Amino acid sequence: MYNIALFGAGRIGQVHAVNIAGHKETCLYSVIDPHQAGAEALAHKYGAKVQSAEEAMADPNVQAVMIASATDTHADLIEQAARAGKAIFCEKPVHLDLARVRDCLATVRECNVPLFIGFNRRYDPQFRKVREMLSAGAIGKAESLVITSRDPSPPPATYVKVSGGMFRDMTIHDFDMARFIMGEDPVAVYAKGSNLVDPAIGAAGDIDTAFVVLTFPSGAMATISNSRRSGYGYDQRIELHGSQGLLTAKNIHENAVEQWSEAGCVAAKPEHFFLQRYAAAYQAEWEHFADVLAGRAEPQCSGYDGEQALYLADKALESLRSGKEVQL
Amino acid sequence: MYNIALFGAGRIGQVHAVNIAGHKETCLYSVIDPHQAGAEALAHKYGAKVQSAEEAMADPNVQAVMIASATDTHADLIEQAARAGKAIFCEKPVHLDLARVRDCLATVRECNVPLFIGFNRRYDPQFRKVREMLSAGAIGKAESLVITSRDPSPPPATYVKVSGGMFRDMTIHDFDMARFIMGEDPVAVYAKGSNLVDPAIGAAGDIDTAFVVLTFPSGAMATISNSRRSGYGYDQRIELHGSQGLLTAKNIHENAVEQWSEAGCVAAKPEHFFLQRYAAAYQAEWEHFADVLAGRAEPQCSGYDGEQALYLADKALESLRSGKEVQL
Amino acid sequence: MYNIALFGAGRIGQVHAVNIAGHKETCLYSVIDPHQAGAEALAHKYGAKVQSAEEAMADPNVQAVMIASATDTHADLIEQAARAGKAIFCEKPVHLDLARVRDCLATVRECNVPLFIGFNRRYDPQFRKVREMLSAGAIGKAESLVITSRDPSPPPATYVKVSGGMFRDMTIHDFDMARFIMGEDPVAVYAKGSNLVDPAIGAAGDIDTAFVVLTFPSGAMATISNSRRSGYGYDQRIELHGSQGLLTAKNIHENAVEQWSEAGCVAAKPEHFFLQRYAAAYQAEWEHFADVLAGRAEPQCSGYDGEQALYLADKALESLRSGKEVQL
Amino acid sequence: MYNIALFGAGRIGQVHAVNIAGHKETCLYSVIDPHQAGAEALAHKYGAKVQSAEEAMADPNVQAVMIASATDTHADLIEQAARAGKAIFCEKPVHLDLARVRDCLATVRECNVPLFIGFNRRYDPQFRKVREMLSAGAIGKAESLVITSRDPSPPPATYVKVSGGMFRDMTIHDFDMARFIMGEDPVAVYAKGSNLVDPAIGAAGDIDTAFVVLTFPSGAMATISNSRRSGYGYDQRIELHGSQGLLTAKNIHENAVEQWSEAGCVAAKPEHFFLQRYAAAYQAEWEHFADVLAGRAEPQCSGYDGEQALYLADKALESLRSGKEVQL
Repeated sequence: MYNIALFGAGRIGQVHAVNIAGHKETCLYSVIDPHQAGAEALAHKYGAKVQSAEEAMADPNVQAVMIASATDTHADLIEQAARAGKAIFCEKPVHLDLARVRDCLATVRECNVPLFIGFNRRYDPQFRKVREMLSAGAIGKAESLVITSRDPSPPPATYVKVSGGMFRDMTIHDFDMARFIMGEDPVAVYAKGSNLVDPAIGAAGDIDTAFVVLTFPSGAMATISNSRRSGYGYDQRIELHGSQGLLTAKNIHENAVEQWSEAGCVAAKPEHFFLQRYAAAYQAEWEHFADVLAGRAEPQCSGYDGEQALYLADKALESLRSGKEVQL
Repeated sequence: MYNIALFGAGRIGQVHAVNIAGHKETCLYSVIDPHQAGAEALAHKYGAKVQSAEEAMADPNVQAVMIASATDTHADLIEQAARAGKAIFCEKPVHLDLARVRDCLATVRECNVPLFIGFNRRYDPQFRKVREMLSAGAIGKAESLVITSRDPSPPPATYVKVSGGMFRDMTIHDFDMARFIMGEDPVAVYAKGSNLVDPAIGAAGDIDTAFVVLTFPSGAMATISNSRRSGYGYDQRIELHGSQGLLTAKNIHENAVEQWSEAGCVAAKPEHFFLQRYAAAYQAEWEHFADVLAGRAEPQCSGYDGEQALYLADKALESLRSGKEVQL
Repeated sequence: MYNIALFGAGRIGQVHAVNIAGHKETCLYSVIDPHQAGAEALAHKYGAKVQSAEEAMADPNVQAVMIASATDTHADLIEQAARAGKAIFCEKPVHLDLARVRDCLATVRECNVPLFIGFNRRYDPQFRKVREMLSAGAIGKAESLVITSRDPSPPPATYVKVSGGMFRDMTIHDFDMARFIMGEDPVAVYAKGSNLVDPAIGAAGDIDTAFVVLTFPSGAMATISNSRRSGYGYDQRIELHGSQGLLTAKNIHENAVEQWSEAGCVAAKPEHFFLQRYAAAYQAEWEHFADVLAGRAEPQCSGYDGEQALYLADKALESLRSGKEVQL
Repeated sequence: MYNIALFGAGRIGQVHAVNIAGHKETCLYSVIDPHQAGAEALAHKYGAKVQSAEEAMADPNVQAVMIASATDTHADLIEQAARAGKAIFCEKPVHLDLARVRDCLATVRECNVPLFIGFNRRYDPQFRKVREMLSAGAIGKAESLVITSRDPSPPPATYVKVSGGMFRDMTIHDFDMARFIMGEDPVAVYAKGSNLVDPAIGAAGDIDTAFVVLTFPSGAMATISNSRRSGYGYDQRIELHGSQGLLTAKNIHENAVEQWSEAGCVAAKPEHFFLQRYAAAYQAEWEHFADVLAGRAEPQCSGYDGEQALYLADKALESLRSGKEVQL
């Protein structure tokens, strides 16, 4: 049984707590959160301790840390955990500054601890199946990838200001998905964006609607279509066109009931947001991390993957500002 | 070029007129209808003559008749045409009285003219494909057939009174479909019906909602689900379960546009009624009849098929009244 | 925290164990199974005791029993638990003999303990939504209900022999579903069945394919379409036609990936069987039972519901044998 | 009755011939084609004359011309017809050279004859419905348009060489669709393309796979996803995301039959190519042109629309070659 110290008792921390406690090889050992009441409530629910970061890092009973705290704490916590010899699961991103990410990853390498970056969508059963079917030759060679990623409704402008911008905060998942599906790093990126959803987002210096085009060494291409507001739930789809056909992962809908009347056929809209849509993915990525802890696997989604997704976000921003395709 | 005399200038006569005129081997030669103005308008549109029934039957230029007039004229016109040596296309049913049907068919046999009964649904591309895929072994042996057949809205009670009742007027198509798909005659029928849609239909002595169960010699079974009112267009589907899987022919919808919003995903409802849904079927059955005229085919849907469908309707009514399964 | 004694450590017992242990108000206290090794393995996994039936019934720490053992033990265990004052969750059926069911329920009434019968499908989110939308007036008044219920592949003939026959073993769920959706008891039943799937089932005196027609006091009707073998997974659908439209609960498919090629568009088939399809239903019914334990609810699915479903199965068998509609 | 002279007896000319002959106000008067046998066969079928271009232009009985001949003849024929005072329906494009297009349109303006450019997809019922629903406010303000346009299989390299390149030959339809749906001219274009389908296309100096991003004055954006080979029929879809939801026009499939088995659920692929998919559109655009002839309408798709679509194709090529977004 591996004891896990969980940093962050918020929404995403609670999702991980369920999976940590529910896995037969892992145990929620302690919860760390500057918001003490939140830490206590979550710890109480699972019979875990409340610790400070220092206590957790120094505690020899802790084998691994789950970092689900605020973004600006990730890199520091990773380094502390690495030096303490803990295995590390960290929510994306490592940091919003690429240089800081690289420093941090260098420390992890020196300390020789496993680091898994939680790009949860790689563990969505639909997207994973597309990747597996491509690998199995179902559609020949990959040619065009179309990623649709639209949130149900925009975040508050206060969040936008500290988010690092849409590319680093939201599109980063899609950059990782493009790399995951295509199995190679892109060689060029073009990005175009607008502020259409909420003027406050524009006032905060950010965009809320974007199209990105990636080009891969093979000549294959990908587009990403993003919006901070779909108006119909969480729109998460991919289409992968290959030399022998198409693989398409469609949305998961709230239910399978239809109502037919003179007004037409009404079906349920897609699952509301990531907590619903990616519930299975969060569980599957934790199962993978338990395999890492048990020495049965290497982290499939590494610090390098985290670095590359951020690099693409930075370069997309450069393209957005210059109006030019950027070579990578 | 075969000259066709068309009996009946109403809604269904007009559908046939388009296909007769549009076929490269057939020509709309004349229109016969007691409603003179209707006959004239239709004839004018296609450069055809207006004739009386007697003139048409006596006219040596007429090679074939299309009988799309009122139901109670069908048997008489069939006999007259048979005696005049014309090839015959007759809309279902031959007659509402089974004895009269049998007499009529005897006359046709004596005169040795081709008779095609217009069970249009056999020519629907979806249903035909199901039949063809069954024949090709796509699902092994047929076991259960589910026929859904629901009209968009009920007919007026005045029509109901002269219709012969729902089984002879509406379900007759489904009895024929069951025979067409299964390729054998049923050995037992059970029918249950209610008057739920319009009290005036009940007052006219008829039902408007029904379930029918047919049993076939092989042990395979079929159900028919009927209503005079769906509330969402024309619901025309079949499901055929076999020893190795399922074939299902779904509805054709008005268009392929969907609207997604907080209220869900709204798609178009099924095509409104038979003129829309079976447009392709009406054209295909005429192409078959042209093949019959040219000696390239025998009528695929014969007088015997018309007789059997009516026989099943009669027996279903007997079951409805007795509450017992009726052996055939 | 309510302590639960679980009778039966087999497939379905294991499903309940997860939900009992996972609920914040219930605890898996003990496991009882004549197969000692199975009981021990399951108990060990959740830190529960292994008990004999007598020990469990006598143990004052046990507040409720979950009866998921062999069918022929249900009625006896219900009575023992009732006399011991335990709350009872029992898998369907109470017993295969209706008189025995009635005796057993009388005992439960005398002892005044809550009894919940596990007709899991009532808690399927799709079917429940149909029921709720009907109640909310979404399609007016219910007129025709079509229940499709097909297992992926047939059970062994050895099971068939002790199953009580397809109507009591399999269709019983559909009888309950019809009562659940329509909210009234039927007044007539007609059943037709064949042995098409496996000759061994016929040799065991049973059928494997059936159509059933139920009539309700309002004149509304229902059909049930059953097969022991679909060939494409677990086919669990309902269609409810009302005076203002249709509600349809479609299958849940294995995934949302499609492959398009010259051969067509291939999507995943329905979930394999009940463990997959009804995972959410098993969890939801346990949540309801926890509400019953806590005094927040009365059992929504009572002994009477269990009795009525069995009664309909008996009457369907009578119809099958007589070829007549049976009045209820 | 308007007499129409048809230039071009090839595949697309034959499609128009059916619609011209089938419309109650128009008549196929003559056919002109350098391939004399083709002209004769088509003329014979509809009782039309064979004429030379000079004869048709000089014939006072000809009210309008349908130009469906080789691309390099379009501009000359438009000018001749304009000078002869004929109404003009011309297949896209007017010419592959933008300067020549502008000269030609100037002549048309001087002669003051109606000119309709046959961007058939504007008359597809699905796409038109999306445009109409947007206009009716169904999804608020347009924000992101996604156009998917993939041919079933690539043309021969010999055709590619004279086609003007993929943007002028194929994407031109999508540029027009973007303008049609959005109702405004874009202000920037970025294009990226690859030669992935057929090396012979690359050897001919062209691409066969592309992504294009258009930006509109409102900040709204559009992407076009193109391939010369889908491998699963003709993929013609649009998605229009607005401030209050999504409108999506899905493919039309070959039929509505599904086969379910252990291998999954197999449905028909999209209609094979434009002759099938756009049959209704070709008919509807001719109905519009008949309205133009009768003075009931102005051409909805004008020479300006033809010019703008070609302009966008030219600018997309400039972007492809420069790797930069091009301002318009």
